Amino acid sequence: MRILLINPNSSPAMTRTIADAGKAVAAPGTEIAGCCPSGAPLSIEGHSDGVLAAFHTLKLVDESGPADAYVLACFDDTGVDAVRERVAGPVLGIGEAAMHAATMLACRFSILTSLERSVPILEDNAARYGLAARCRGVHAAKLPVLAFEDGESAYAVLRDAAREVLARDRSDALVLGCGGMAHLAPRLAGELGVPVVEGVACAVKFVESLVSLRLATSKAGGYAYPLVKTALSDGEQHV
Amino acid sequence: MRILLINPNSSPAMTRTIADAGKAVAAPGTEIAGCCPSGAPLSIEGHSDGVLAAFHTLKLVDESGPADAYVLACFDDTGVDAVRERVAGPVLGIGEAAMHAATMLACRFSILTSLERSVPILEDNAARYGLAARCRGVHAAKLPVLAFEDGESAYAVLRDAAREVLARDRSDALVLGCGGMAHLAPRLAGELGVPVVEGVACAVKFVESLVSLRLATSKAGGYAYPLVKTALSDGEQHV
Amino acid sequence: MRILLINPNSSPAMTRTIADAGKAVAAPGTEIAGCCPSGAPLSIEGHSDGVLAAFHTLKLVDESGPADAYVLACFDDTGVDAVRERVAGPVLGIGEAAMHAATMLACRFSILTSLERSVPILEDNAARYGLAARCRGVHAAKLPVLAFEDGESAYAVLRDAAREVLARDRSDALVLGCGGMAHLAPRLAGELGVPVVEGVACAVKFVESLVSLRLATSKAGGYAYPLVKTALSDGEQHV
Amino acid sequence: MRILLINPNSSPAMTRTIADAGKAVAAPGTEIAGCCPSGAPLSIEGHSDGVLAAFHTLKLVDESGPADAYVLACFDDTGVDAVRERVAGPVLGIGEAAMHAATMLACRFSILTSLERSVPILEDNAARYGLAARCRGVHAAKLPVLAFEDGESAYAVLRDAAREVLARDRSDALVLGCGGMAHLAPRLAGELGVPVVEGVACAVKFVESLVSLRLATSKAGGYAYPLVKTALSDGEQHV
Amino acid sequence: MRILLINPNSSPAMTRTIADAGKAVAAPGTEIAGCCPSGAPLSIEGHSDGVLAAFHTLKLVDESGPADAYVLACFDDTGVDAVRERVAGPVLGIGEAAMHAATMLACRFSILTSLERSVPILEDNAARYGLAARCRGVHAAKLPVLAFEDGESAYAVLRDAAREVLARDRSDALVLGCGGMAHLAPRLAGELGVPVVEGVACAVKFVESLVSLRLATSKAGGYAYPLVKTALSDGEQHV
Amino acid sequence: MRILLINPNSSPAMTRTIADAGKAVAAPGTEIAGCCPSGAPLSIEGHSDGVLAAFHTLKLVDESGPADAYVLACFDDTGVDAVRERVAGPVLGIGEAAMHAATMLACRFSILTSLERSVPILEDNAARYGLAARCRGVHAAKLPVLAFEDGESAYAVLRDAAREVLARDRSDALVLGCGGMAHLAPRLAGELGVPVVEGVACAVKFVESLVSLRLATSKAGGYAYPLVKTALSDGEQHV
Repeated sequence: MRILLINPNSSPAMTRTIADAGKAVAAPGTEIAGCCPSGAPLSIEGHSDGVLAAFHTLKLVDESGPADAYVLACFDDTGVDAVRERVAGPVLGIGEAAMHAATMLACRFSILTSLERSVPILEDNAARYGLAARCRGVHAAKLPVLAFEDGESAYAVLRDAAREVLARDRSDALVLGCGGMAHLAPRLAGELGVPVVEGVACAVKFVESLVSLRLATSKAGGYAYPLVKTALSDGEQHV
Repeated sequence: MRILLINPNSSPAMTRTIADAGKAVAAPGTEIAGCCPSGAPLSIEGHSDGVLAAFHTLKLVDESGPADAYVLACFDDTGVDAVRERVAGPVLGIGEAAMHAATMLACRFSILTSLERSVPILEDNAARYGLAARCRGVHAAKLPVLAFEDGESAYAVLRDAAREVLARDRSDALVLGCGGMAHLAPRLAGELGVPVVEGVACAVKFVESLVSLRLATSKAGGYAYPLVKTALSDGEQHV
Repeated sequence: MRILLINPNSSPAMTRTIADAGKAVAAPGTEIAGCCPSGAPLSIEGHSDGVLAAFHTLKLVDESGPADAYVLACFDDTGVDAVRERVAGPVLGIGEAAMHAATMLACRFSILTSLERSVPILEDNAARYGLAARCRGVHAAKLPVLAFEDGESAYAVLRDAAREVLARDRSDALVLGCGGMAHLAPRLAGELGVPVVEGVACAVKFVESLVSLRLATSKAGGYAYPLVKTALSDGEQHV
Repeated sequence: MRILLINPNSSPAMTRTIADAGKAVAAPGTEIAGCCPSGAPLSIEGHSDGVLAAFHTLKLVDESGPADAYVLACFDDTGVDAVRERVAGPVLGIGEAAMHAATMLACRFSILTSLERSVPILEDNAARYGLAARCRGVHAAKLPVLAFEDGESAYAVLRDAAREVLARDRSDALVLGCGGMAHLAPRLAGELGVPVVEGVACAVKFVESLVSLRLATSKAGGYAYPLVKTALSDGEQHV
Repeated sequence: MRILLINPNSSPAMTRTIADAGKAVAAPGTEIAGCCPSGAPLSIEGHSDGVLAAFHTLKLVDESGPADAYVLACFDDTGVDAVRERVAGPVLGIGEAAMHAATMLACRFSILTSLERSVPILEDNAARYGLAARCRGVHAAKLPVLAFEDGESAYAVLRDAAREVLARDRSDALVLGCGGMAHLAPRLAGELGVPVVEGVACAVKFVESLVSLRLATSKAGGYAYPLVKTALSDGEQHV
Repeated sequence: MRILLINPNSSPAMTRTIADAGKAVAAPGTEIAGCCPSGAPLSIEGHSDGVLAAFHTLKLVDESGPADAYVLACFDDTGVDAVRERVAGPVLGIGEAAMHAATMLACRFSILTSLERSVPILEDNAARYGLAARCRGVHAAKLPVLAFEDGESAYAVLRDAAREVLARDRSDALVLGCGGMAHLAPRLAGELGVPVVEGVACAVKFVESLVSLRLATSKAGGYAYPLVKTALSDGEQHV
């Protein structure tokens, strides 16, 4: 089984972190093809970065050859619905994967993401997935996405924020709200005493599951293949 | 990895169907221990059957020796929260497993269960899991739970009901709303042309995933171990 | 009119407290048959206790002879739907009774229960009853259920927690979230200056009302009598 | 105990129907003071009628001398919140009373009202009371409010509409959505085979219950007494 | 185009403030007819004031001659639905206008109103308009409605409350929750650094927009003209 | 005032239709700069088209010189949040504009769009805007987006579908769910007898309103300007 594990931003370090997290949990027969699109922003911090990243992700999917399943490793789940239209295999965003997993393990969870500007995006996603009732809060550690490559000082900020969030929200699980935090989950779980749910690992295992069950993206409704347009545009218009 | 796959009713035939469905999808290293509690109703059709089944399921869990994970194969997910309190490994009901899976594959799904009396239970569950927004309807094939052991005539009723439900709800995936339908999923999928999501298989793969990720039930909140009571009751009271 | 007033746990002292609360408000012609099931946990603190209590409550209902109505005096409303299936007369849980009453008296209410682990259960109930919009918060006094038999020190903890909860939530009514607090309502109301709603009394009066209106549990849908199973199980199965 | 049972419209015949329905169910010691405001519309069919009726109801409440509780017998519950501010005793609308009662008796209910134009009002009320999840539909018999005084032909239309509504919605209880239908409930219940919930009777019994429990409207929040204005306006202004 | 801009309370000073705010933003061809009903309360602080004001507003609308559109300048939007029934042109409350505008400008907004007793009214409105998901909180400056005529000290209280509310709610826009605050919006916007949305100005521009688009209130459903009653009541009834 | 009115797809005919609709309603001092991005799909039918269109729309916005406000004329509102981050002036999608307008005019509205595959997208948008409670249904005329350029036969299909939708949903307003239908609104309104709300016109008037009120996109939260990334990616990665 070949899983295309896409980091939708273009940070090489973060792409490696994410690919490592995926490979660490993949089943013996699973090939994890970690990659990121050229042209995407270095990090995805807000809606505009999300649109740019989704566009380049679609191109990367088209050019990457066949895969049995797809994981999009931006916690905003930017582009997930669009990729679902273009492929047959199951597609999962790490945000939805982590939130689904958290509801299987805990009564209530809190999400800790990087920047405050991502909070409304994740709140909207939680509501759209219908998981808002189980999510007691979305919070920002107030660190940019790429800070988590740095190590110790970012880790300490994250851990302290996590402790405060869990206590204030009275949640019994923590969801890490950024793909760049993937390598920090085991250490955090050890210190926090609650399940720490990290989306890259969850998404890889869940699409492995779906592929092994021969469950694919439905092509009968909103995820049908894109329609081919019968004429080409003659370019930018100003009327 | 040892997964206790419990059919919460006491039908031997249905227990075998469910165990077979689980074994068919388990990973090489996974042992599926299929079982059902003695004393539980022969089928679970409504709230009262659900309470009786949940009680006997708890006893079965206590007596069954250690397992790495637990699947409760009644689509009502009766007893799932209670089992979560009593064990450390992840616990999944087939209802929630199937609904989560369906949201990964399709824009909108419909549930087809056995009897009309189960419809409000499943609607309430979908709402509680927060997945009501994705579920366009819960419907009954108007066949009792055990009818699905019979074969051909029940299959035809189910397939025709499924076709009508998918058309009326404009859904692009079907969720089978009863553990006794587990063996019918592949055949239905072939005829209906949409993903047919069956909870036993999904739940087995998802708890396998969680165990391999070392994710266990949170013991810090509502799923903490039951408190030991310091005194014993002196029996039934009439005041 | 005979009302079976069931304390679903097996604490004799709490059963007496609850029966006294029911008898104190019953109409002249109403007989309150206070009772508790043998075999149930001494107190209901979480989902697992709830399943055990519900099972023994069903047995008690079956063995207790005819009654015109039923009140289940655990604020979690464990077993209420199941009892509704097995009897004809109206059945009310003290949790739902108190929440309905609170919406008749105040714009917004808060619930104060015993332990933190019960909070998600009550939040889910409030949502399922549809009353979450009026409930500004569910909080725990952090005292075990049986502590309220003790008197003064538990009372002071409860009152102080109530004051803090009302101020923080800006609620104009308090709902007592545990049957064991039944005797404390009048005293609390005097000190807090807002309606203090206690479920045992509310439920007794509401089922009296329903009986006098000749309104009984519907047998046409999800509360129809349980189906009789046509074959008996041959006991615990391991497949 | 004195209950002011107000028909907020000014139809004498409907006022008598409502008063009769209230007196038929009142407890021995309860005095039902049936009345209607002069100046209100003859029937309440829409928002504008509702505002006029609410205004005259407030005046009637002020002029009617003390009462222990208040029932407002328009199913739209027009003016209920405003009356709650002006009095101490509990106040109940027949719409909310019937909807609360229906959730105690059935898994799902449908409302059958007079005219289509009232449907969105009742849908909004059901949502605001939080009971929308239990209400499977609000429907109109397409008869004006005063038609129900007429007898046989209106009854037949109502019964046939009820049968269709229950079948289509798969509901197991019917709520009568107009005070003018109060006298038809027992006959309908006999023919339909499900609980038929009528708000006048429910509201009378529920406020009787609240008064006997010494529960009054909270004066600590949104139902506090209206503030006295310190200056009088100098009349209509055109600026 | 003639817009009837109604202050539903009867404060002459506040009527002038509101009319000035409307005139300041009206398009060249728009006549703003500012007015207030005689007989209405001097300020609208709660449900009872709201019913009185709505009644007198309906009379004022009937007597004021034809207008192309109507703005009701009480943030509670009292009487808006009723006026919609009685006229053809579009009708807008300043509460809904401001909330709609805020969702066009910011991810999340908070509402700051005058008194705590208005908070549940505005929360209910936000929910009914469906905008609750975007509104992170409704708060009270704890100043009576008419205080805002006073100037400096009320302004300082409001500004400080706004700062605290924005920080606590992490909102990126402020909605002023009282018509009497209309003149304070520009100054507040300058000091707070976020959009400050004031409903009078928004409502005037939005109804101007609707009139210019020839969009009028629908007369096909719940806003159809009130039905004429075929008989007159013979006055207050006591049965 | 200069409004950039962007058709996010690249159909020249549809861009002209949309620009004409905007110019027809613009105020005297308003310049409507109608345009479409080169490179975008010829029509937007689904998520994948939406991502491509949003990407090219961002580029068009960056290259188009300053504007006072922006309207995005795809009913899916694709890219609206992203454009809000990149500019200061108000930005409105025609989907949200039309839905907000519909709630100002009618109790309940229905949306009629082109293809079934767009239905879940619009349902999700309605829910995210919080307007789902007012929207009784989203339906497809089962015509591709570009069919509406054709004229008579598409018009007849649309009108017949609209009639059926309004009757089935019991809605009192129709929202046209595709920018390509802009020119059909007046004719439909004449035939259907309810308000027909068309988003291009509404959005142009609403952003005109916001600009005239000096209300701009908040830069304090989720719509803050995109962060500048401090390093450039070294291109597509495969790890």
